[in-house]
Amino acid sequence: METPVVRVGIIGAGTVGAALIDLLSDTSRVDALIDAAGSRLELVAVAIRDTTRVRSHIPAHLLVDSAEKIASDPTIDVVVELMGGTSVAHELITTALQRGASVVTANKALLALSGTALSALARDNATDLFYEGAVGGGIPILRALRTSLAGERINRVMGIVNGTTNFILSKMTSEGSEYASVLSEAQSLGYAESDPTADVEGFDAAAKVTILSSLAFGTALDGSAIYREGITKIRLADVEFATRNGYVIKLLGISERVGASAISQRVHPAMVAKGHPLASVAGAFNAVFVEGASSGPLMWLGQGAGGAPTAAAVLGDVVAAARNKVTKRFDVPFSVDTTLGTFPMGELQSAFYITLNVIDRPGVLSAVTSVFGDHDVSIRSMEQSGFGDEAHLMFVTHIAFESDVSATLVDLAKLEVVEEIGSCIRLIGVDG
Amino acid sequence: METPVVRVGIIGAGTVGAALIDLLSDTSRVDALIDAAGSRLELVAVAIRDTTRVRSHIPAHLLVDSAEKIASDPTIDVVVELMGGTSVAHELITTALQRGASVVTANKALLALSGTALSALARDNATDLFYEGAVGGGIPILRALRTSLAGERINRVMGIVNGTTNFILSKMTSEGSEYASVLSEAQSLGYAESDPTADVEGFDAAAKVTILSSLAFGTALDGSAIYREGITKIRLADVEFATRNGYVIKLLGISERVGASAISQRVHPAMVAKGHPLASVAGAFNAVFVEGASSGPLMWLGQGAGGAPTAAAVLGDVVAAARNKVTKRFDVPFSVDTTLGTFPMGELQSAFYITLNVIDRPGVLSAVTSVFGDHDVSIRSMEQSGFGDEAHLMFVTHIAFESDVSATLVDLAKLEVVEEIGSCIRLIGVDG
Repeated sequence: METPVVRVGIIGAGTVGAALIDLLSDTSRVDALIDAAGSRLELVAVAIRDTTRVRSHIPAHLLVDSAEKIASDPTIDVVVELMGGTSVAHELITTALQRGASVVTANKALLALSGTALSALARDNATDLFYEGAVGGGIPILRALRTSLAGERINRVMGIVNGTTNFILSKMTSEGSEYASVLSEAQSLGYAESDPTADVEGFDAAAKVTILSSLAFGTALDGSAIYREGITKIRLADVEFATRNGYVIKLLGISERVGASAISQRVHPAMVAKGHPLASVAGAFNAVFVEGASSGPLMWLGQGAGGAPTAAAVLGDVVAAARNKVTKRFDVPFSVDTTLGTFPMGELQSAFYITLNVIDRPGVLSAVTSVFGDHDVSIRSMEQSGFGDEAHLMFVTHIAFESDVSATLVDLAKLEVVEEIGSCIRLIGVDG
Repeated sequence: METPVVRVGIIGAGTVGAALIDLLSDTSRVDALIDAAGSRLELVAVAIRDTTRVRSHIPAHLLVDSAEKIASDPTIDVVVELMGGTSVAHELITTALQRGASVVTANKALLALSGTALSALARDNATDLFYEGAVGGGIPILRALRTSLAGERINRVMGIVNGTTNFILSKMTSEGSEYASVLSEAQSLGYAESDPTADVEGFDAAAKVTILSSLAFGTALDGSAIYREGITKIRLADVEFATRNGYVIKLLGISERVGASAISQRVHPAMVAKGHPLASVAGAFNAVFVEGASSGPLMWLGQGAGGAPTAAAVLGDVVAAARNKVTKRFDVPFSVDTTLGTFPMGELQSAFYITLNVIDRPGVLSAVTSVFGDHDVSIRSMEQSGFGDEAHLMFVTHIAFESDVSATLVDLAKLEVVEEIGSCIRLIGVDG
């Protein structure tokens, strides 16, 4: 039997694209790829913005100057979109899907914005839209949610899905440095962008949580459903408190069932108890923790970014798309469960770590704690450091409602003796 | 469009079978399962040894007293084998595959023995043989190796794949108890069998490594290719040494490429450096660590045993098999790469922890260390505890050949001053 050929076009040859081209060009892997894909993957075109720039690793005859040519070329079976951005990429993916090509992308921002419609478009054209590389770099979590866990009732997905913030928080912990200095270091090492907003304010993590949530629960890919807090307000004192008390501060993306028919999606820093598997995920690693009703806790760990790991995930998608193409099949994408609502943030419950800078004078503690009590927020422990005008109070509460804690903070800010509300960080992996 | 029906028969209703029946009978999950399987899963028969025993959770009309009836019934699309054993199960699976039924099993012993032939039989009959539940309980690692990582060049698979031994080693570490007393405790808690040989001597882990290796590398499912050591010789002193020196002792199953065309498969205890992701996998958890050429390190963590987690894995297979049935497709199983040889154990290199009980008299250390030197085994560190007739020496070597270390142990045993060779444990996650 002759081996069928699947023709692949790549749009964008940055670090991921270049690594993917290397993988597809590796002659030692040809047989293994044929075995895996049920076909020979033939790279036929690579679209880059400026074809006059020297690209030593890309054979010149593959270069085309128009991404549109690849999207619309009826002889290209699998279109790999690695250019990024949401506007042009959306058009190109739409063009490719409409003509029945399979599309592989790692474009999390586009998916968080338009993934629901694009998935439906893929289904309507009996083709595949795969995006393993969009979440967790090289970690094959999305296909697991789509396949192995498709029959499982998932209760919660919780991940460290942004390598930059995990690098910064890990460095603050290991080096005892303040946020600003670690951010500068991360920027000079290339681990953080010169404008780090997308990472440190949690936008990147939010897009990834939205994608995870759609596959775990059937929520629409809707970035506006997500509550978001970044790590810019984390202080060294918080990190030191965590270390002293058996926690590690992580930026978590969470999506979980709450009640009968509601999902809560959110991104925020959390004090993770050291015994929790996510607590030991350090540096630029990513991890996704899944709680299934039957499977119990599961965790996937791997490199969350970088050209080669992400290219490995993209290649896995290309292989799956090619195998489907030759068997004239496509994978049914997630479908939106319209019975699911968004659980109100204020009704969530958690234990909290809260810090206040107060003027240290008689009666302060009584005034402060009575505000907690007025809102039914019960205090589990309190530490004080400093004296006089620089007294710093650190509270850990019992499980309390978000809305009650918010109201507590509002009223605390009104106290004359409270100079500043410091941090307010949720605890994960602890009871009561 | 009418929803197609896929008829499922289950052979064996022990803890996993009973949990699977519960999952298939959960009315709240019917729609989700239809979505996932592209069909309605109808449980039509459950074969148990003695149908007169009361099984409150199994509707009486489903019970049949003959497993053969389910294997050979042409109206049953997916046969789930959960009876265990290798002889009758082999016949039943063969019968089912030959008539084109899909087979789902968690029978690791049978797969390690006959998985190559059974996989070929499934392929020849254009049907599926799935066995996610056979390795790592609820952890969906096998499908990831078959799909997401199918295009990746994997260099090493290394796992904690036996929950009983991980429970025992974790307890020895946390409680400071000797092996024998922890084993008794594990037996009374039901975590270890009354005859614990399959677990503590590494047979169970070896079967799982053989399965992982076949999917990662295309090695034949051949239990005889694997080197095996259990945990029965681990002493509390070894565990305490590990704790003092930044290691955790784990029973590891390893399969890795060595050289151009050879694979080394082995099961043995190892001192795992605390920074390694496998070091924090405690208690009854399982984990599989995969090193891919592009993906870099990846790890899967989850509950390695138990009815519900394993049933979740089995259900994932049933869903995949059903989806394939209705689209008249099957997944190509692993094919054996006949170019791969078995790497000779003696030529492997590792750092070693070695203990000796010696008579403490002048010149002993010189005699002992000269034996190491004679075999080119270089000592990195040495600790001594006890004096006189009870002196206990603990060495850590630099990287050395297995064959040289074996020869060293043989010659050490010949020394008059050496009363006993204690432990010899490989180090993992350290250099030089």
